[in-house]
Amino acid sequence: MSSTFGNKIKISIFGESHGGGIGVVIDGLPAGERIDLDAVLAQMARRAPGRDKTATPRKESDTPKILSGMLGGTLTGAPLCAVIENTNTRSRDYGELLSKPRPAHSDFTAYVKYHAANDIRGGGHFSGRLTAPLVFAGAVCRQLLERKNILIAAHIKQIGGVCDEGFDPVTVDGALMARLSRSSFALIDESREDAMRAEVDAARLAQDSVGGIVECAVTGLPVGVGEPMFDGVEGAVAKAVFGVPAVKGIEFGAGFALASMRGSLANDPFRFKDGRVVTETNNCGGILGGITDGMPLIFRAAIKPTPSISQPQKTVDLRTGENTVLEIHGRHDPCIVPRAVPVIEAAAAVALIDLM
Amino acid sequence: MSSTFGNKIKISIFGESHGGGIGVVIDGLPAGERIDLDAVLAQMARRAPGRDKTATPRKESDTPKILSGMLGGTLTGAPLCAVIENTNTRSRDYGELLSKPRPAHSDFTAYVKYHAANDIRGGGHFSGRLTAPLVFAGAVCRQLLERKNILIAAHIKQIGGVCDEGFDPVTVDGALMARLSRSSFALIDESREDAMRAEVDAARLAQDSVGGIVECAVTGLPVGVGEPMFDGVEGAVAKAVFGVPAVKGIEFGAGFALASMRGSLANDPFRFKDGRVVTETNNCGGILGGITDGMPLIFRAAIKPTPSISQPQKTVDLRTGENTVLEIHGRHDPCIVPRAVPVIEAAAAVALIDLM
Amino acid sequence: MSSTFGNKIKISIFGESHGGGIGVVIDGLPAGERIDLDAVLAQMARRAPGRDKTATPRKESDTPKILSGMLGGTLTGAPLCAVIENTNTRSRDYGELLSKPRPAHSDFTAYVKYHAANDIRGGGHFSGRLTAPLVFAGAVCRQLLERKNILIAAHIKQIGGVCDEGFDPVTVDGALMARLSRSSFALIDESREDAMRAEVDAARLAQDSVGGIVECAVTGLPVGVGEPMFDGVEGAVAKAVFGVPAVKGIEFGAGFALASMRGSLANDPFRFKDGRVVTETNNCGGILGGITDGMPLIFRAAIKPTPSISQPQKTVDLRTGENTVLEIHGRHDPCIVPRAVPVIEAAAAVALIDLM
Amino acid sequence: MSSTFGNKIKISIFGESHGGGIGVVIDGLPAGERIDLDAVLAQMARRAPGRDKTATPRKESDTPKILSGMLGGTLTGAPLCAVIENTNTRSRDYGELLSKPRPAHSDFTAYVKYHAANDIRGGGHFSGRLTAPLVFAGAVCRQLLERKNILIAAHIKQIGGVCDEGFDPVTVDGALMARLSRSSFALIDESREDAMRAEVDAARLAQDSVGGIVECAVTGLPVGVGEPMFDGVEGAVAKAVFGVPAVKGIEFGAGFALASMRGSLANDPFRFKDGRVVTETNNCGGILGGITDGMPLIFRAAIKPTPSISQPQKTVDLRTGENTVLEIHGRHDPCIVPRAVPVIEAAAAVALIDLM
Repeated sequence: MSSTFGNKIKISIFGESHGGGIGVVIDGLPAGERIDLDAVLAQMARRAPGRDKTATPRKESDTPKILSGMLGGTLTGAPLCAVIENTNTRSRDYGELLSKPRPAHSDFTAYVKYHAANDIRGGGHFSGRLTAPLVFAGAVCRQLLERKNILIAAHIKQIGGVCDEGFDPVTVDGALMARLSRSSFALIDESREDAMRAEVDAARLAQDSVGGIVECAVTGLPVGVGEPMFDGVEGAVAKAVFGVPAVKGIEFGAGFALASMRGSLANDPFRFKDGRVVTETNNCGGILGGITDGMPLIFRAAIKPTPSISQPQKTVDLRTGENTVLEIHGRHDPCIVPRAVPVIEAAAAVALIDLM
Repeated sequence: MSSTFGNKIKISIFGESHGGGIGVVIDGLPAGERIDLDAVLAQMARRAPGRDKTATPRKESDTPKILSGMLGGTLTGAPLCAVIENTNTRSRDYGELLSKPRPAHSDFTAYVKYHAANDIRGGGHFSGRLTAPLVFAGAVCRQLLERKNILIAAHIKQIGGVCDEGFDPVTVDGALMARLSRSSFALIDESREDAMRAEVDAARLAQDSVGGIVECAVTGLPVGVGEPMFDGVEGAVAKAVFGVPAVKGIEFGAGFALASMRGSLANDPFRFKDGRVVTETNNCGGILGGITDGMPLIFRAAIKPTPSISQPQKTVDLRTGENTVLEIHGRHDPCIVPRAVPVIEAAAAVALIDLM
Repeated sequence: MSSTFGNKIKISIFGESHGGGIGVVIDGLPAGERIDLDAVLAQMARRAPGRDKTATPRKESDTPKILSGMLGGTLTGAPLCAVIENTNTRSRDYGELLSKPRPAHSDFTAYVKYHAANDIRGGGHFSGRLTAPLVFAGAVCRQLLERKNILIAAHIKQIGGVCDEGFDPVTVDGALMARLSRSSFALIDESREDAMRAEVDAARLAQDSVGGIVECAVTGLPVGVGEPMFDGVEGAVAKAVFGVPAVKGIEFGAGFALASMRGSLANDPFRFKDGRVVTETNNCGGILGGITDGMPLIFRAAIKPTPSISQPQKTVDLRTGENTVLEIHGRHDPCIVPRAVPVIEAAAAVALIDLM
Repeated sequence: MSSTFGNKIKISIFGESHGGGIGVVIDGLPAGERIDLDAVLAQMARRAPGRDKTATPRKESDTPKILSGMLGGTLTGAPLCAVIENTNTRSRDYGELLSKPRPAHSDFTAYVKYHAANDIRGGGHFSGRLTAPLVFAGAVCRQLLERKNILIAAHIKQIGGVCDEGFDPVTVDGALMARLSRSSFALIDESREDAMRAEVDAARLAQDSVGGIVECAVTGLPVGVGEPMFDGVEGAVAKAVFGVPAVKGIEFGAGFALASMRGSLANDPFRFKDGRVVTETNNCGGILGGITDGMPLIFRAAIKPTPSISQPQKTVDLRTGENTVLEIHGRHDPCIVPRAVPVIEAAAAVALIDLM
């Protein structure tokens, strides 16, 4: 495992879905900064399941307990450790899962890599629940960024066949950022909510699940963040974002659309505006040569459909060596995309703080 | 800067386009392994410009000189250092570029970040020429991988509006891999070459450039490579691939297409085949939970159009503080996508060796 | 702060003396290994105060709670997290310490570095109590080492003016190692105990403290451990050992005595013995060129006297800007050297596991 | 191997004694800083052999060639690479050494670790010659430190039985620092030179070698440098200094002498002096809790006698499996301690820059 991120700050995430607790240690935060814990909890609430009918039925009590690094609301300079106790450690029978890996889950690869010793209950360390400590870390980091007027917000760009409009990459609006970063179903065009929920409901009724895309914007970044070649902004953000289970792609600025563009169109012209250098378009997503150029940082992450579905699925029985069929009982979250929004924001926050 | 990559091996790339030389130090390679330098040179030749009419006019003499780490063709265990001398250190007049940043280039961000002290000649450390040492490193690493029957090959998936077919993600053929990994214009369906070259020529005639997509496959990986959460295969490969200038997106397996898929379709069913666990489809791109599952690793990288074009472009004059127009004289490579193929392969090789 | 150690494994220590809890996350341990928690607790008991009349009066309840990474006594492959709750979070009045730094303590440097936001209660993150999670980590690591017949044991080489004999560096005895590694007042020549305790008592009666030297041996290491130049055994062990508060020096083999030796005496002659290459002497401490040579690894760590003493001491008042005198009330541990023995062993275990 | 150092800057040292060349890549240096190459060369000359009758007979031409990272004397922000060509690549017959490891050398451990593939000529990567690139890196770093009034100087504290006086740890004099940092036989009490040279000559005449101690001081450090627990000043400096071959011990401040001291003597009293907090004594060596306290940083490194001596020595023949005797012909440097002075300074410079 390497659930550790960062160079200037070091983030270490621990826990398993049904173990004693999950949490995070953040080493290297600046002493003396005040942290608004209510704002942290608000971010964690956006990620928590059970707030919304699109969410997983499990009710989590995700209130983190701060063990160190904060005194009277202020960072002490010592590693910040937050622990979230697991209240649901009763396990239903996972016996079948131990030998019948769920398709598209980590069951099979973890079984081989960890010599069948991994804690499979609830997905163990691979559970989406492990994104809770990441959101905690991101919520702390984004407060530090906000003091430099750096704002992070994401929205649901797509669920199944339904799309939200995209950020205007040149003029990302502060009020929009503020609204999105508090929303639990974050959309730029809020009129798309019903169609998206219908997409999710259709998947649920079909005992199926559905994927989507989260688009994230970061405004207020100064020129000069990023350490190319290998700690450029794209690489650093990608490493953090791919730490989020279910992410299978990331693109910056115009991304894959650049493949069919000509340079004359793709190249963002420089202009002076109010004494500052800006670009007229933002196909590069605010990054040139791996370094921020002062325009909004824009990226999109592809989220695969939740692998847990109630339909019978073809799999193998590792014990008997035979092909078989798996049925996973119980209710499953048919779409994690809305809850992935604050997680992707958190990953961006963590990556950016580490570069600054 | 942070032109350093890796944990188990440490790769440090140095050089500027028109400085004394470029090169790489690779620390942590296994002693006693033989390296076929001709095979390394063959990989470097695939990347070198001037071999092909789609390429930049500059002729490079990219023969690396091994300064340490190899004796009689065998790795000694000491850091492997290869240096490529720059023969073309005469600089045309870069005076204008110093104050007029080229759109979509690193000129502006490097100017701010490095306090105008960066070597702008030929793009300095941001030059595509710096991918030569990466290809050297990758060529060494892929030889070590090949001894474990791990093969890496990529092809031009798209240039502008013309597409090659994709890898069959389940049954990537060894003969195809071998052919592609030697090709300087790597296509699965070779009949697409004329159409692609026409796309490049059209861009050249228009004093323009064009982008594309490189698709890469890795076969023979054992189950269990990858260290989630943050050094999972996706994150590690992405960090290396985003170290390649011009890459603006990466996706694994079905990637962004997963956004509109249902889980019942996206989940790759497990089956036993010849005593081994395989999947019937490969939408996950050979990675489950950040760990290889034994199926081919498949990813695609989006390459933006070469920013250097001969058309007049809007930019700013940093010296005078005024908006202006920039004309870049000389011939430019209208499409780097064919030469990006071995570079992307090299990035994958380096990332995978580091995880094994 | 950077309370993070390791490359192959990542150890992150958190906590403050009087905060909610202290603990450690260990990422990268091998899945499937059984851990004997009783043996871990036995090591922690050796470090804990209050077991011995030489120790600090505070009674700690240092039973760690495993939050993740272990299931049914077996490592799962996920990060191992252990938390020790702080029961003594009532603080006596630290008001004076806030402005009057204790000589030889971190009070002054932490005050400046952490902008007076550091948690000064009980020394905060600088407390000797933070060695408890290090001993936990070391106790886990040494179990993994013991399965390869690698044993670690240390003894009190010196307290004040009283010395124990040293390890025979060539023939360190297994029975001796076993005895020392369980002892709470570890001596090779147990007849020295009374004289050493008298040294400690004399310091206590004088409201003073006294320093010492811990000598550590590691047997059973294979030839070839260590990654020179900068992760050689000396550097790696030193980095871990200097992570222990109060350590001010480290030497390997004959160490500083080599300064006055001739090469003809210092060079350890090689001999074949029972088909194995050994050395007749062991002035190099089992390390040649930063790499283990198969002989016992021997090093010594200098421990400064406990800075907390009850005598009035000259210090400054940071609030008033005036010179003043500080009196620290309460009882203090006049000698931490006996309790430092298992901590130094733990640091060695952690450093060696990371190199293997 | 892991010849890589640093977190904020990354230093990668490469080369083998008789290979094509040796050198260093330094990634992360600040752009825009001017580097005085003559001052760098002056430092390298202090380390180079052949300048002094105590030195090895080999004449090195150690003029480094800057390949990247510097333009017109100014750092560009790209990785700084310096290469020193090896002119003496003709090798005498090393055949015997291949099977008869020199006592106290890395021959045996490197043979095992690197599967007999290591370059044994001249010691390969383990040669003292590899300290030349370290001195280059240190000379660059100390220039950056000097701009903040941080000065580094060391002296020969001891050779064999002859000692120089020590630094006054409280009042290290700037003029003394300047003199020492230019000296090729650095002594505080220069009248000790004859006695020390006699010690070296006596060893030479006896076909033997002799060890010593280098003491280093760093003045002008601000309060607050160091990242405990594991990147505290002691640990960071130790890791760099143990990267220097032949170093077997390091101690800070009063070091091992603290073992026999009482706290009332060892604790350095704080006082206000000229509005600044100072300590009346400096037994802690300028470091409290792993963090600089504004007093001079003082440490000593133990250097073992040069292992290469002309006397016959007992060793083994790895080929035949028999005990044998080795005679090393040719002239050998009987004492590297004078030349180790600038190397230890360089290691300190590199470690401190990385912490700042």
